[in-house]
Amino acid sequence: MRAYDIIKKKRDGLKLNQAEIAAIIKGFVDNTVPDYQMAAFLMAVYFRGMDEEETYWLTECMRTSGDVIDLKGIEGFTVDKHSTGGVGDKTSLVLGPVLAALGLKVAKMSGRGLGHTGGTIDKLEAIKGFSCELSTPEFIKAVNTTGVVIVGQTGNLVPADKKIYALRDVTATVDSIPLIAASIMSKKLAVANKGLVLDVKVGSGAFMKSLDDARELARLMVKIGKQAGRKVTAVISNMDEPLGEMIGNSVEVIEAIETLRNKGPESFATLIKALAAQALALASDLSHEAAEAKVSEVLENGQAYKKLLEMVKIQGGDVSMIEDYRKLPAAEKTVELKADKAGYISQIHCEEIGLAAMMLGAGRETKESKIDMGVGLKLIKHVGDQVKAGDVIAELYVNPKRDNDKAVDRLRAAITISPQHVTPQKLILDIIS
Amino acid sequence: MRAYDIIKKKRDGLKLNQAEIAAIIKGFVDNTVPDYQMAAFLMAVYFRGMDEEETYWLTECMRTSGDVIDLKGIEGFTVDKHSTGGVGDKTSLVLGPVLAALGLKVAKMSGRGLGHTGGTIDKLEAIKGFSCELSTPEFIKAVNTTGVVIVGQTGNLVPADKKIYALRDVTATVDSIPLIAASIMSKKLAVANKGLVLDVKVGSGAFMKSLDDARELARLMVKIGKQAGRKVTAVISNMDEPLGEMIGNSVEVIEAIETLRNKGPESFATLIKALAAQALALASDLSHEAAEAKVSEVLENGQAYKKLLEMVKIQGGDVSMIEDYRKLPAAEKTVELKADKAGYISQIHCEEIGLAAMMLGAGRETKESKIDMGVGLKLIKHVGDQVKAGDVIAELYVNPKRDNDKAVDRLRAAITISPQHVTPQKLILDIIS
Repeated sequence: MRAYDIIKKKRDGLKLNQAEIAAIIKGFVDNTVPDYQMAAFLMAVYFRGMDEEETYWLTECMRTSGDVIDLKGIEGFTVDKHSTGGVGDKTSLVLGPVLAALGLKVAKMSGRGLGHTGGTIDKLEAIKGFSCELSTPEFIKAVNTTGVVIVGQTGNLVPADKKIYALRDVTATVDSIPLIAASIMSKKLAVANKGLVLDVKVGSGAFMKSLDDARELARLMVKIGKQAGRKVTAVISNMDEPLGEMIGNSVEVIEAIETLRNKGPESFATLIKALAAQALALASDLSHEAAEAKVSEVLENGQAYKKLLEMVKIQGGDVSMIEDYRKLPAAEKTVELKADKAGYISQIHCEEIGLAAMMLGAGRETKESKIDMGVGLKLIKHVGDQVKAGDVIAELYVNPKRDNDKAVDRLRAAITISPQHVTPQKLILDIIS
Repeated sequence: MRAYDIIKKKRDGLKLNQAEIAAIIKGFVDNTVPDYQMAAFLMAVYFRGMDEEETYWLTECMRTSGDVIDLKGIEGFTVDKHSTGGVGDKTSLVLGPVLAALGLKVAKMSGRGLGHTGGTIDKLEAIKGFSCELSTPEFIKAVNTTGVVIVGQTGNLVPADKKIYALRDVTATVDSIPLIAASIMSKKLAVANKGLVLDVKVGSGAFMKSLDDARELARLMVKIGKQAGRKVTAVISNMDEPLGEMIGNSVEVIEAIETLRNKGPESFATLIKALAAQALALASDLSHEAAEAKVSEVLENGQAYKKLLEMVKIQGGDVSMIEDYRKLPAAEKTVELKADKAGYISQIHCEEIGLAAMMLGAGRETKESKIDMGVGLKLIKHVGDQVKAGDVIAELYVNPKRDNDKAVDRLRAAITISPQHVTPQKLILDIIS
């Protein structure tokens, strides 16, 4: 089977069969299909799309391109969550303990961040002693003990996705719903969780700019997951502004702790409850309402917070830093950003906010950059809020050794104040199951 | 200017400006834009197209990517012809002498063939002593003397096209009208002829399968040529079956000689007259009818044939081989292909006919293959002809040392006999100027 013929068939809008998809993907992974043929193929997919069956085959073929992790040895209902990117996304830090408190098993493998802000692993490393490097037997044992463990990715998981994504990134073929779906689902299905909750974000700060696109992506991913024999549901949530108030590493850990103590920002708590309720509904016969009541219960009675302490302890972290989070690494100085005119906050550009935080030192500009755990920022005013000139709209937690002026300018430019009142969109837009 | 942004802009259907087109083409030629980005760009162009202006800039940028040839020193109206491929295309061999007999100047640079059958240069090398390697001063002097010279391509002409074409060929991006137009016109305009006649073929044996596509390509190329200050016209001709009767090298030279003696196959003579009349009309104030009358005159009075003799002589060829073409290399044996049933010839698949001739030894399978000058074939029956079972429909001129059975089978499969009568299409379908 020639790569040329597969490219041409897709170019001409014809449906590819399983063997054809396998041939081009395997060929690309083992370097017999060159980059330039794959690039042409990806652009043809960008224009012609892929139907559900093709996307499923693509996902399967990518999923099995490297190691797969069976999670054998973990008792109970294993569940994972995936968020389609986002700035200030500390969902995993909170959702893991909540799900463990509900009796589910969270064997989470997470990544480090590049650009924007750090990833979940980076944030956890703000806690002294916390180790994300557990051997497989340690990992399994820890999950069975505490119900929730978060480790770094090990092994050669889905090399096809790494190689394809790197190419999409430089050939303007990232924004393709079937390619996005296959990329996410191949990675999620490579780990044999029983349940999967997808957090599909929509809005100016997300991959998916329109609700229709988000719904299409969610439906496609749910379908692929079910075809692979998993229980899957998707929550479509608004991402017109960053999630919660804090952007950084220590500060996001603090916000996660507050949320687990049931004192976090309302919008963030709403998303956590929706995701957790969906996960619980997958694992049980509970209605969504009954599941949500259970979730509120473990947040109110401290069981979710207790699971965080257990997790930090079993992973070697300094629990006293959670109990008194003033012990976490902190920035030396706080800089206030004030409104330069009166009006209403009409837009907070997520990616720019993330890049401003990165410039403060909270994220990596290159793979080699070292993260400054204490720096970050807090968004005090949100979309829809009225402000007067001189009102503090954000705080920056900075290390004065760095030149932070550009970050301040970037943050200012990312927040729009307009004369007309803007009604913020509701957070949970749809559930697809 | 990043290649990524240029790819994305084209992907999104926006018009590229001259600087953007120059950046991606120059970058590709000097290896700063990698193959995979160019492949994605070409596929985006395949889907989004390019308008006249973009195609002109692309052509110009490709044209000036290497040497350009000014033809200074040639007196009179220099004219070139381009055919959009074809099987059994000995047009240059006949048109050159005809145009020279009409007083025009033909400084033809031609290529070798790969696949199908040999190119013009290969065919001329059937004539003992004929040299296509003239220095530039020799070339100019010869054109001024005889009016027509055919040499091989020298120098680094349009390297951008070579590199882009090689990539299009393996990424299924050949069939794009703006890319085809830019490829052809960049090469044609790199040589400073005053006039250019385009022979755009349409039909099952041509690049362009529909008349609409052929018209679009012809209009675009004529527009680009005029914008570059040349006189250009395009003849759209039918290519539902090979041109003339002969496919091979010696045998095509023989058919060219016969045509210049005004005794060639009618269809081939019709195309030659149309192309020559268009070229003459570009160089003069003559109407098409008056020009065509002049063309018939030089074919009837032997002046065109005389120009062939002069050209062969000035290029060192054995003129006696033209005067008595039985002296040209010949195959050892003739094999007849007979109709296996009664009916009407309904289709003669050009590419398959070309490949059958290649298998006999008339063309190159790889760049290194050596051509067997004497072998080839003759199509005796044409589309629309009635045949009885056992009628000879073609003759194969073979070298018995080769295994020719597969070529015979391929030829048989390429000719369809159907019970219904099929009316052949007329040869000249349109003139675009």
